[in-house]
Amino acid sequence: MFAMTTHRQQISITYDFPVVFTRNLFAPRNRHLRDAIATTDTPAPHRCLVLVDRGAARAHPRLSDQIRDYFTAHSDALQLARAPQLLAGGEAIKQTPEPLFRIIHALQTARICRHSYCIAVGGGAFLDAVGLAAALFHRGVRHIRIPTTALAQCDSGVGVKNAINHANAKNLLGTFAPPHAVLNDSLFLDTLPRPLILDGIAEAIKVAAIKDAPYFRSIERAAPRIAAGNPTTIRRILQRCALLHLDHIATSGDPFELGSARPLDYGHWSAHKLEAITNHRISHGHAVAIGICLDALYAARLGHLPGSEANRLIRTVHTCGLPTFHPALLQTNSRGRLLLLDGIEEFRAHLGGQLTLTIPAPLGSRIELHEIDIPLLTHCLHTLSAGVSP
Amino acid sequence: MFAMTTHRQQISITYDFPVVFTRNLFAPRNRHLRDAIATTDTPAPHRCLVLVDRGAARAHPRLSDQIRDYFTAHSDALQLARAPQLLAGGEAIKQTPEPLFRIIHALQTARICRHSYCIAVGGGAFLDAVGLAAALFHRGVRHIRIPTTALAQCDSGVGVKNAINHANAKNLLGTFAPPHAVLNDSLFLDTLPRPLILDGIAEAIKVAAIKDAPYFRSIERAAPRIAAGNPTTIRRILQRCALLHLDHIATSGDPFELGSARPLDYGHWSAHKLEAITNHRISHGHAVAIGICLDALYAARLGHLPGSEANRLIRTVHTCGLPTFHPALLQTNSRGRLLLLDGIEEFRAHLGGQLTLTIPAPLGSRIELHEIDIPLLTHCLHTLSAGVSP
Repeated sequence: MFAMTTHRQQISITYDFPVVFTRNLFAPRNRHLRDAIATTDTPAPHRCLVLVDRGAARAHPRLSDQIRDYFTAHSDALQLARAPQLLAGGEAIKQTPEPLFRIIHALQTARICRHSYCIAVGGGAFLDAVGLAAALFHRGVRHIRIPTTALAQCDSGVGVKNAINHANAKNLLGTFAPPHAVLNDSLFLDTLPRPLILDGIAEAIKVAAIKDAPYFRSIERAAPRIAAGNPTTIRRILQRCALLHLDHIATSGDPFELGSARPLDYGHWSAHKLEAITNHRISHGHAVAIGICLDALYAARLGHLPGSEANRLIRTVHTCGLPTFHPALLQTNSRGRLLLLDGIEEFRAHLGGQLTLTIPAPLGSRIELHEIDIPLLTHCLHTLSAGVSP
Repeated sequence: MFAMTTHRQQISITYDFPVVFTRNLFAPRNRHLRDAIATTDTPAPHRCLVLVDRGAARAHPRLSDQIRDYFTAHSDALQLARAPQLLAGGEAIKQTPEPLFRIIHALQTARICRHSYCIAVGGGAFLDAVGLAAALFHRGVRHIRIPTTALAQCDSGVGVKNAINHANAKNLLGTFAPPHAVLNDSLFLDTLPRPLILDGIAEAIKVAAIKDAPYFRSIERAAPRIAAGNPTTIRRILQRCALLHLDHIATSGDPFELGSARPLDYGHWSAHKLEAITNHRISHGHAVAIGICLDALYAARLGHLPGSEANRLIRTVHTCGLPTFHPALLQTNSRGRLLLLDGIEEFRAHLGGQLTLTIPAPLGSRIELHEIDIPLLTHCLHTLSAGVSP
């Protein structure tokens, strides 16, 4: 019988994927890539399309050859659908839909299906664009991320998000799509320019400040070695950041961010806006370094965070070699209003619902704020503009 | 310490949404739409953008006014972000990315966020395109589906998929994105042209044939009443189809179709190809009707399905008023090869991995085939071309 009725539809999905920390991933004897692929149900050889960030290929001129040699050495299990394809990465790959459609075309030409693999080797923006293409193509093909920058290895690359920018809005179009595997090769960090290392360090300080006081103290102590470019220290700090990030996604109870709170976005409302005001002339990590200083100082002025702790955070950022201020923070429109302040509403709109800012209170833990006192915030901006006292 | 290590990342997500069967959804006293929205965590009023399929609006000239009146009557809880917006639906909305970007623009203009609502009122293709836009925008905003065709109410609209076509491939770009709610209003069926009713009936026969023998017998008995357009019979048949579809998604163990098997795609390999060969001059449901006849006959010739059962299925399709054959099935290329046969590899590529066809064996249950005997299939095509004996 037809009946006026309500059926409750319940669906549960479980994702389970490896996040590997290794060195020299494409050395033929390194089995991590093979093992991430060859364990699955479909018969060998497993077809793979490898897309490589031109920036990573430039820093590692033998990268494409190494990838080819790896597939030759493992030809009993793996097969390149085509030669590795180079694509320009960086924020440009996310700024228009064209690169996304180029990646989709490459997937189609290589006849990638839901049981073959789209492997992306590159920085955060590159992984974001390829990840979105892989998530959409045939409603999702298997996607392996090989992050080549510090930021991607410790933060964005190990997460479950992808996106491109659209209509002047950062990450406006994207999905939550857990990858098939994430393979971090510390070799990529060795050749990374110092600013790209520091982009990752900024996210490490951020997550430490709101989640892990001992970790924060270890970064604080390591700051001079970070500034000096000590590779062992940098690897250790970045790996701990990645694990905290993974732990947050797995245990927060909201991996696909359906709620309003986003603790990992501490310092990000102003960082996103600063990137936009400067037309991305400041990198995401450097903008985050400034954003966490601003919100820590603001938290201290409100009495949520001891002033001494805000100072420790700002000093750690500074000692690592990261900025604590940018003149664009004080840029105004024709009516004298700070452009930065529009970032508050834009941040609220992106998360949806109520404005929710996470601040450290005290270092290693956090509280949420739901409004911003503009005069107090402006005061903090001017304090930061005076620089870090020695 | 930095360590070469492998972390296993596990993430679980649970979706829980209502699928409502009601009548006169936009009557102010009908609380289903309000209740689907106002139960959530964010404070009222809840902002909604309503997008309406021009086809549905044409059949129901007062639809936009009724929606406006509904929101006025429930203004304590609900708010229209803008007046309901009309968009052309049908397969055209899926054929290029432009309509998708128009919907995204509408969402942005209406400042829809993750805590407001994108409500789509329309047929299957319309829901597919709006669903994809809602899934991508801010990485997913709350999406409510109000299907207006028989096919959408009993099949595509109650599922978790969305997609647009791309580069000549049906549903090449899309996501799995469970909606916030599905609200089926039987009123929409009353004004539906007969072919659109039959599109839904074809999917009902399909799912009955592979999942539910008593349901198949009830469709078989009801076939003359279906052909006569009896609304009570049609509603009952379509609702049972929707519930079987929902049950399949919830209990198959593979709601996001990560494996190769797709039982609900019985008859679909040839249906998709037939739609392509005819440039969508045949509707999806009518193509499915033909596809299930073809595969049932083929299953009978292989000895998997009693010949009498294949005949019952074909006769039921025919008695309902659906086609059992289309001349384009026998169309050949310049080398005399049937165009239809390319559909086998295209279907395999879309699912990925091994070719997997589901056939009824016997009626009400199913087995999977992994290859197709082309001469035998061709023989079946010619048998069907001779028509259904009285």
